[in-house]
Amino acid sequence: MATALASSGRSIVLPAPLPLDSGQSIAPVTIAYETYGELAADRSNAVLVFHALTGDQYVASTHPITGKPGWWERMVGPGRPVDTNRFFVICANVMGSCMGSTGPASPSPDGRPYGMRFPVITIRDMVRAQVALLAELGIDRLYAAVGGSMGGMQALSLAVNWPALAERVLVIACTAQMGAQNIAFQEVGRQAIMADPHWQGGDYYGTGTAPDAGLAVARMAAHITYLSEASLTEKFGRRLQDRATKSFGFDADFQVESYLRHQGLAFTNRFDANSYLFITRAMSYFDLAEEHGGRLADAFAGVTARFCVVSFDTDWLYPTEQSRRLVHALNAAGVPVSFVELSAPFGHDSFLLEVPNLDKVSAGFLSR
Amino acid sequence: MATALASSGRSIVLPAPLPLDSGQSIAPVTIAYETYGELAADRSNAVLVFHALTGDQYVASTHPITGKPGWWERMVGPGRPVDTNRFFVICANVMGSCMGSTGPASPSPDGRPYGMRFPVITIRDMVRAQVALLAELGIDRLYAAVGGSMGGMQALSLAVNWPALAERVLVIACTAQMGAQNIAFQEVGRQAIMADPHWQGGDYYGTGTAPDAGLAVARMAAHITYLSEASLTEKFGRRLQDRATKSFGFDADFQVESYLRHQGLAFTNRFDANSYLFITRAMSYFDLAEEHGGRLADAFAGVTARFCVVSFDTDWLYPTEQSRRLVHALNAAGVPVSFVELSAPFGHDSFLLEVPNLDKVSAGFLSR
Repeated sequence: MATALASSGRSIVLPAPLPLDSGQSIAPVTIAYETYGELAADRSNAVLVFHALTGDQYVASTHPITGKPGWWERMVGPGRPVDTNRFFVICANVMGSCMGSTGPASPSPDGRPYGMRFPVITIRDMVRAQVALLAELGIDRLYAAVGGSMGGMQALSLAVNWPALAERVLVIACTAQMGAQNIAFQEVGRQAIMADPHWQGGDYYGTGTAPDAGLAVARMAAHITYLSEASLTEKFGRRLQDRATKSFGFDADFQVESYLRHQGLAFTNRFDANSYLFITRAMSYFDLAEEHGGRLADAFAGVTARFCVVSFDTDWLYPTEQSRRLVHALNAAGVPVSFVELSAPFGHDSFLLEVPNLDKVSAGFLSR
Repeated sequence: MATALASSGRSIVLPAPLPLDSGQSIAPVTIAYETYGELAADRSNAVLVFHALTGDQYVASTHPITGKPGWWERMVGPGRPVDTNRFFVICANVMGSCMGSTGPASPSPDGRPYGMRFPVITIRDMVRAQVALLAELGIDRLYAAVGGSMGGMQALSLAVNWPALAERVLVIACTAQMGAQNIAFQEVGRQAIMADPHWQGGDYYGTGTAPDAGLAVARMAAHITYLSEASLTEKFGRRLQDRATKSFGFDADFQVESYLRHQGLAFTNRFDANSYLFITRAMSYFDLAEEHGGRLADAFAGVTARFCVVSFDTDWLYPTEQSRRLVHALNAAGVPVSFVELSAPFGHDSFLLEVPNLDKVSAGFLSR
């Protein structure tokens, strides 16, 4: 594992109002970002890494709240597949999130936090903000755009909507269209948050309370979907937590219960409930085909980037079948694409975990 | 579909305190039940049908709250696989539930509702209460015990713990040991209920409020697990609900969101949140192997009933692999068993829905 790189805590305010897919626009927009490595003199080595739903810009440096290593240090760093000795890596906190970029917790033009007055944004809006960031950084061409899960959706959106920008697009554990089951799981998460009286219609900032209980339930439900049944069985099975016999009560008797409760609680320390609402909304709206008349292949007409698509055999949230549909559309549009389904035991979270073949595939794709 | 049979609204109070697996006992215990068909003079034609987590005794007659047909009319009724022209069918509301049998909403000996003072019960406790009911009805031998999902767990528990009782055991979409993923999903449901301030530690009876929001979230999350991704895609896909374009808001834009919200709300009209806590707890504790020293086959030593085990290829909550493990254990114990994995698109809920091959398999097994 690489040593964590230093975090800069950088951010910029976009110079112009950002138009949104809803027809609204938003200003000012702050985008917080981290960079790793050095931009080459000819500006040819920039790699934009997109984060997933609950991720952030600290892809390869210590998280300022949790103190944990960057969330993708196995992928990004010196000598890693996204090699910071070679590439200038940029990772920005998505608009709508809560780690420095403008989101529902940010002050609106009237000085009060947006709360639910924050505009409903799309994946394309998130990318639009990052494209504006690139312009501010003087980068008009990306060596590669890289992302897993919602990060992959952003990479796809960038490739399709700003086709001149990226030379290579690496899409991992992703889909081009959010499916009904995923929309359903995310709706459960939002309802859990909104059912929490501390949510108060989203106006909980500054009250000293927050819908942490609802957010924790949302996270618990989602967390199960990130894993595989086999990995849960392997990791926890029916083993009890710090006890020899069942309590005949409602404590966390089972290790898997204790683990889930911890995941839920820990999440509330670093994430804003309204951000969870807005980002999952953006994901549920994501449908590259719909944006282009209903036929997915049409989305890729005129796209010149090379693609690499990776799925995992135990990922039931974004199953291989969805990657295959994406690849068929790329093929139908004549876009060069390599596709691999990797075997890994960790379910959807495989893209974040110890899967050496992912490193190999990624390094290979990015080296050419 | 058969016409709904008449409901009797019958119940009995068990004549003696019921010992529980926790070491406690409980009295009085009321068991509400329905019967269909006529008991033969030689008492040889009784079939006990067990219901699932949120089911009840109205297996083949109109539900008194919802006015809906019995939940298994396609399986139980005149000319159906569990043929009420031939069999005397008994279905009892499980202890811990809320349709007339003693549960957390029932008055405790001090006159106040139990709430969380209700004892934590097990699947075996539920069965013990029903075995006591059979004794009261003068039935000491069952032609068959039949159940799907948690109903199957009860059928297994009866066969193993009261081996003289059942001649045939039909177990559908079930497992002999609750797995880690299912324990996890049920923990999310319980946390959703307990996070609702209206839960009030379980003492919400008579307050005019109940943890309906939490219970609805629990139901929504669980409901997704009862279906298959393919059936959700087929039934809803990304279709919008009563609108031509997305609202860019947090209404139920998608049909699947609207459907889920409805499922959650409707559930709160007929189910008690504390019952949900206690019944899911019983399910998470269910492990036939653990009850018998850790080896599943040992559970079936001395069992003389014939078994039929049915799984569904799209059931990811109780996948075929878990039925297969059960069947291997039955085989290892020398117990006669027929096993079939049926193809059906509906996920776990296939056991309740239009699957003609389930009718055929069940009718065939029960005819011999």
